[in-house]
Amino acid sequence: MPDTSDALVAALRQALGATAVLTSEAQADEHARYLSDWRQRYHGRARAIARPASTEEVATVVRLCAQHGVTIVPQGGNTGLVGGGVPDASGLQVVLSLSRLNRVLAVDAANLSMTVQAGCTLAQVQDAAAAAGLLFPLSLASEGTCTIGGNLATNAGGTQVLRYGTARELCLGLEVVTAHGEVLDALSSLRKNNTGYALRDLFIGSEGTLGIITAASLRLHPRPKGLCTALVACADMGAAVTLLQAARRDLDAGLTAFEVMEALPLSLVARHLPDAAHPIAPFNADPTSVPPPWLVLMEHTSSVSDTHAAESLQGWLDEVLTTGLAQNAALAHNEHQRRAMWGLRESIPLAEKTEGLMVKHDIGMPTSAVPAFVEEAGRAIAQRWPDARVVCFGHLGDGNLHYNVQPPALARSGPALAIFEGEVNALVFGLVMARGGTLSAEHGIGALRRDELARRADPVALATMKALKQTLDPTGLLNPGRVI
Amino acid sequence: MPDTSDALVAALRQALGATAVLTSEAQADEHARYLSDWRQRYHGRARAIARPASTEEVATVVRLCAQHGVTIVPQGGNTGLVGGGVPDASGLQVVLSLSRLNRVLAVDAANLSMTVQAGCTLAQVQDAAAAAGLLFPLSLASEGTCTIGGNLATNAGGTQVLRYGTARELCLGLEVVTAHGEVLDALSSLRKNNTGYALRDLFIGSEGTLGIITAASLRLHPRPKGLCTALVACADMGAAVTLLQAARRDLDAGLTAFEVMEALPLSLVARHLPDAAHPIAPFNADPTSVPPPWLVLMEHTSSVSDTHAAESLQGWLDEVLTTGLAQNAALAHNEHQRRAMWGLRESIPLAEKTEGLMVKHDIGMPTSAVPAFVEEAGRAIAQRWPDARVVCFGHLGDGNLHYNVQPPALARSGPALAIFEGEVNALVFGLVMARGGTLSAEHGIGALRRDELARRADPVALATMKALKQTLDPTGLLNPGRVI
Repeated sequence: MPDTSDALVAALRQALGATAVLTSEAQADEHARYLSDWRQRYHGRARAIARPASTEEVATVVRLCAQHGVTIVPQGGNTGLVGGGVPDASGLQVVLSLSRLNRVLAVDAANLSMTVQAGCTLAQVQDAAAAAGLLFPLSLASEGTCTIGGNLATNAGGTQVLRYGTARELCLGLEVVTAHGEVLDALSSLRKNNTGYALRDLFIGSEGTLGIITAASLRLHPRPKGLCTALVACADMGAAVTLLQAARRDLDAGLTAFEVMEALPLSLVARHLPDAAHPIAPFNADPTSVPPPWLVLMEHTSSVSDTHAAESLQGWLDEVLTTGLAQNAALAHNEHQRRAMWGLRESIPLAEKTEGLMVKHDIGMPTSAVPAFVEEAGRAIAQRWPDARVVCFGHLGDGNLHYNVQPPALARSGPALAIFEGEVNALVFGLVMARGGTLSAEHGIGALRRDELARRADPVALATMKALKQTLDPTGLLNPGRVI
Repeated sequence: MPDTSDALVAALRQALGATAVLTSEAQADEHARYLSDWRQRYHGRARAIARPASTEEVATVVRLCAQHGVTIVPQGGNTGLVGGGVPDASGLQVVLSLSRLNRVLAVDAANLSMTVQAGCTLAQVQDAAAAAGLLFPLSLASEGTCTIGGNLATNAGGTQVLRYGTARELCLGLEVVTAHGEVLDALSSLRKNNTGYALRDLFIGSEGTLGIITAASLRLHPRPKGLCTALVACADMGAAVTLLQAARRDLDAGLTAFEVMEALPLSLVARHLPDAAHPIAPFNADPTSVPPPWLVLMEHTSSVSDTHAAESLQGWLDEVLTTGLAQNAALAHNEHQRRAMWGLRESIPLAEKTEGLMVKHDIGMPTSAVPAFVEEAGRAIAQRWPDARVVCFGHLGDGNLHYNVQPPALARSGPALAIFEGEVNALVFGLVMARGGTLSAEHGIGALRRDELARRADPVALATMKALKQTLDPTGLLNPGRVI
């Protein structure tokens, strides 16, 4: 439909200004970053990339696309991991980038809240909170690039969920442009507001399929006055879960992170990124030594001081070392050591990537179920594919594991890889779902897990989701082919 | 439609057993408590009261009522304050009581979660958590009677929201019987689960108009090891809000409650419930003395011990007394004193009731807006009705005030009262909404605030809510005339 296309592009240019609408012919290079995800797994084409500068302009883009029967892919920082933010291969879709809606609208320190436009990067939001002496605790590897609108559209998780919750729990209100091109104002900064249905929560996590988030009110927290980080070695996952339970009981809200890493990902870091591999004694005593079976990274905050955080965490670690729950432990005694500990954890994805292709899973389950799952899944994979390897690490405090499997040598490309991927997914997801778990804890559904969701979701829940999509976006204008 | 009625009652009796279906003819006395709210403001009649004993029986009741075209009023403990849980006056509706679904299904201490049926009382849920050494922090005056299903259907608040959130933040998953009589299984116990739309959150707070909650997975917390409560006198609301801000900054998650009471409600307690009025020195130094302009009740928990909680709260109070932010303060030194402090706060509603009729408001706004609101609303009411009196108290930590107005002597009944109520509501809600506030912070909409919501809600939000209702309950079977 080239005529329709031209008319739409002309109308978009008239509404937004010529420079706010990119087309592939004119700006091929500029174009590229909107069309592929950053893992380079999804590559699409677009009729145009519209970059509105205000909520009203977003609504105009939606209305114009609706008039022309052209579907829309809303896009924030384009850092998603499930192909939810790039257009399909048809070249018929419009990418609606929120990146120019990038202003912090208000910070209300007394109310511990702030109001921001959707295109603000997460780092920008964190910085604005810090400038007011407060904390916006959402924290992700991609925080310099990802946007708060994308974080909310995907209900992002990260490393502080244990204490502060996911993006959902950090959002007080939203402004949304609907599929009808109307502006829904639910931008309240209230902690309690029982006036009808939770529209805010319906849009959060809907991955741009029900409406386009244009602004948000966010919940801020006091900045902890002290912080201490530690590495703890555990003999097995059962001990790590018991350690978590003890830490929650004894440190309560002071426990802000509880990450876990198995020996294999630590070995991969040692091989590919040796500078990151041994952050602190005793974990650097002998760089050639075998890593512990499981290493926990935990973070403890204090409302008093760094010294208080360190003393209370040291006291607690002395106890768990005495009881044998932990094999070994080390505190970070300064910011350099603290960063080195987090550097170890954060180096795993790059070390993995350097090692080669992995079939990745972002699974979640009750923490009580994790030890038996790790045991059973590991055994089943080893039996079925003796030379496959499991790279397991993640946010144990939330029951969320990144459970990645390196295919056997003969299944690392082509049809063999596709068959392996299908089989290992079936195995992993089967064991996860049998334990009341989820096939996507934090990454979302996007294009990657859509079929899997359709297969495995509760049928009444799935039918309800389809009905909601039909109600809020009856013509299928918004991000078609994603989620459901 | 007596024939239809009989056939439905017969079918319900056959499905549930004769004793599980009450009709007014047979059990008039037993009947009564299902038909009026506990404030005795709403009185209805019912064709039958169905008391299913399982999720499947709930689904059966829904299907039978749908077949007979009879609408359903779901009911938990019937302690709601907005007329959302009692039938209308037609005598044509069926009350569906969840009270027999009253089992705790599972407690998972390692996952800090539990699964319960909807008819469990809140106290029963709290007790089951405590028996596992854990905390379910939702806490309300009616906790011995209200049910967890009702708490979730209304997104209940209470005194611990500041730290632990409302019922919504304490829920991990739901089982719901839909308006089609199907069972929607979203009963997961996961802290992170990004697999499609937030159906759980759509049913939470929908007051039984979108589906019937039959079971829930709940988030548990560690039990604090120490606790200390204090009363603090402030010169004005501005000082109280600054005190709150300082407390959040310095005590962080250790601040678990921050309630406020103005002098007038304290005087009413002194007049009508003198034993409760003066819990502790210096606030009992002279029982005839004038109460402070504003009295704050704050609670501080510690992950260490009671002594630690008391010492750190005392240290903090010494500071705020020195800076002049507080006029006076007292710690509870034992459980008796602690209960006396809470007793003062909890006596206010009864003292109010004894004093006479009040036009009540459950308003919320950003805490930063509260001082100017209190000032402006007080002045406007005094100007318009010189002998009206404002009774103001509530959950300042959440920006939620119970802002009740005693009508002038000439407007305490009949048409004059109705006129006064309309005018004072318009005045109060107008000032609240102008500050980004809400006309119902925690009580919900029910029947009481339905028209007000229709008048004041964002029109796009309201239209969206209506579309959701139409989608999930196309025949209007569930709790018609409530919320929207």
